[in-house]
Amino acid sequence: MNISRKSLDIVKSSMSKYVINTPVLKNKELNLICDSEIVFKCENFQKSGSFKFRAATNAILNLNETVKKSGVITHSSGNFAQALALASKNQHISSYIVMPQNAPKFKKNAVLKINDNLIECKSTLEERENTTREIQNKYNLTFIHPSNNLDVILGNSTVVSELIQDHADLDYILCPIGGGGLLAGSALACNAYSNKCEIIGVEPLNVNDAYKSLKSKKIEYNLNTDTIADGLRTNLGDINFPIILEHIKSIICVSEDEIINAMKLIYNKLNILIEPSSAVAFAGVLKEKEKFKRKKVGVILSGGNVDSKKLPF
Amino acid sequence: MNISRKSLDIVKSSMSKYVINTPVLKNKELNLICDSEIVFKCENFQKSGSFKFRAATNAILNLNETVKKSGVITHSSGNFAQALALASKNQHISSYIVMPQNAPKFKKNAVLKINDNLIECKSTLEERENTTREIQNKYNLTFIHPSNNLDVILGNSTVVSELIQDHADLDYILCPIGGGGLLAGSALACNAYSNKCEIIGVEPLNVNDAYKSLKSKKIEYNLNTDTIADGLRTNLGDINFPIILEHIKSIICVSEDEIINAMKLIYNKLNILIEPSSAVAFAGVLKEKEKFKRKKVGVILSGGNVDSKKLPF
Repeated sequence: MNISRKSLDIVKSSMSKYVINTPVLKNKELNLICDSEIVFKCENFQKSGSFKFRAATNAILNLNETVKKSGVITHSSGNFAQALALASKNQHISSYIVMPQNAPKFKKNAVLKINDNLIECKSTLEERENTTREIQNKYNLTFIHPSNNLDVILGNSTVVSELIQDHADLDYILCPIGGGGLLAGSALACNAYSNKCEIIGVEPLNVNDAYKSLKSKKIEYNLNTDTIADGLRTNLGDINFPIILEHIKSIICVSEDEIINAMKLIYNKLNILIEPSSAVAFAGVLKEKEKFKRKKVGVILSGGNVDSKKLPF
Repeated sequence: MNISRKSLDIVKSSMSKYVINTPVLKNKELNLICDSEIVFKCENFQKSGSFKFRAATNAILNLNETVKKSGVITHSSGNFAQALALASKNQHISSYIVMPQNAPKFKKNAVLKINDNLIECKSTLEERENTTREIQNKYNLTFIHPSNNLDVILGNSTVVSELIQDHADLDYILCPIGGGGLLAGSALACNAYSNKCEIIGVEPLNVNDAYKSLKSKKIEYNLNTDTIADGLRTNLGDINFPIILEHIKSIICVSEDEIINAMKLIYNKLNILIEPSSAVAFAGVLKEKEKFKRKKVGVILSGGNVDSKKLPF
């Protein structure tokens, strides 16, 4: 799938008054460590604390009026939950958020500050889907998937649209992979706006379903969800995977220690707190220094929703 | 003293390729806490980690060629030391930095990463000045004062120039006071660029020389330097004080606990690490909530040079 620059411009401009055109940060010491020029796109400073606010906003803007009246529902372990709660509130639409019991308490509290309609369920994907379906039917709601939905993917594309428009000379952009929605959106934007830039996905070695799927050319599943990067435990879907398969050439896998080290380096050098899921892309640069040597590299810091009292370093 | 908008535009454009037009951050939760709309101008993301890089850059750009060949010197307990070391290195000018023994080790190490010419001296102002004069004479250097120098003040003015150009509807801008250079520069820029905005200074109660000086209309001195805000221990000078006296109507004094609380709130809600000196302006908003109720308030986060391993909360 290719989407024209003109279409992506329309997505971007329709969203521009609702989302923050997030700042980029640079740091000489990190450039020296990596021997490359790095531009950090700070979605940790996006509304609701992550790029997911773009996804939720675009999905809601594209609902028809009848659907808007009934309301929306999603299931999410964290960032999409906060994002949909806030985006729907901003658009005066009611929303229901299903969260698994093992979602970080910190993220549950953040949702509750915005929206009372938080429903907890058991932590399996099956239970998330069952609970969601039940409430969806009860209140006649529209389900918005956190990553496997084209409007969500197009909303996500605006991260890279903004980044390339401000930094047209990027050689690479590194993007964390959870459900695959950000990677698919980034791929579409990069394809539309740049001739030279390549998007590279990065994911935790422990949940490397995307790496395996790209290799086997079919969706593979994670056997466990054992990673500190709580936002990246989900699997690819049938809408984003074909886009990823078409546009993405390589995926870097990083260990838990590498993720924590990247998070710590960003904390100590950029003086910002990001969540582990968000540190994964920078961990990819640190891991493959040779590949990025003397290149200009965009790194998407996807979110900052972390409990500052429970840092892993 | 008044400086025209046109002159300040020239200062800003002559510096624009060397300094970062720093991002602003907003946060709904902090707005709710204060019942006002706050825009944080993030000089913690400036090169060398503070607004002082603007001061040092403008001072160096305005040196004549003969002076540039011999080099420059300053004494500073931290941020101006780093700023002058980096700005002079970037302009290929040699620099000597005198730092008192009680300057944070963290800040000394940051200078040493850029510049070997770091000279330590005893921690009194007299010793700082004596040591500086000695080295200045020995190497025929030009002394650049960290705050009491017109080029430094004009360099600082660009923080507020940028902020008002992007947010013309601000009612107030709160600015921390140390040596008075940022406050004087902010006052000149506000006066030139806005009819409605007022600059308010904020300083630690323990070193409130500016508050007392504004009241008595002559420069008063601090009897001690006992504040966590290590960048604000210095005194006003004869170049910046007349500007402050002419343009600034009020100064808010905040306690040590209020500074730490503001620093912690910014850490927990904005997820950024700033230094205590930098939290002082936001502490002023929290202290005088009634005054800022339903107003649009700019808060200058002046710097982020803090040892993340030694947070006071």
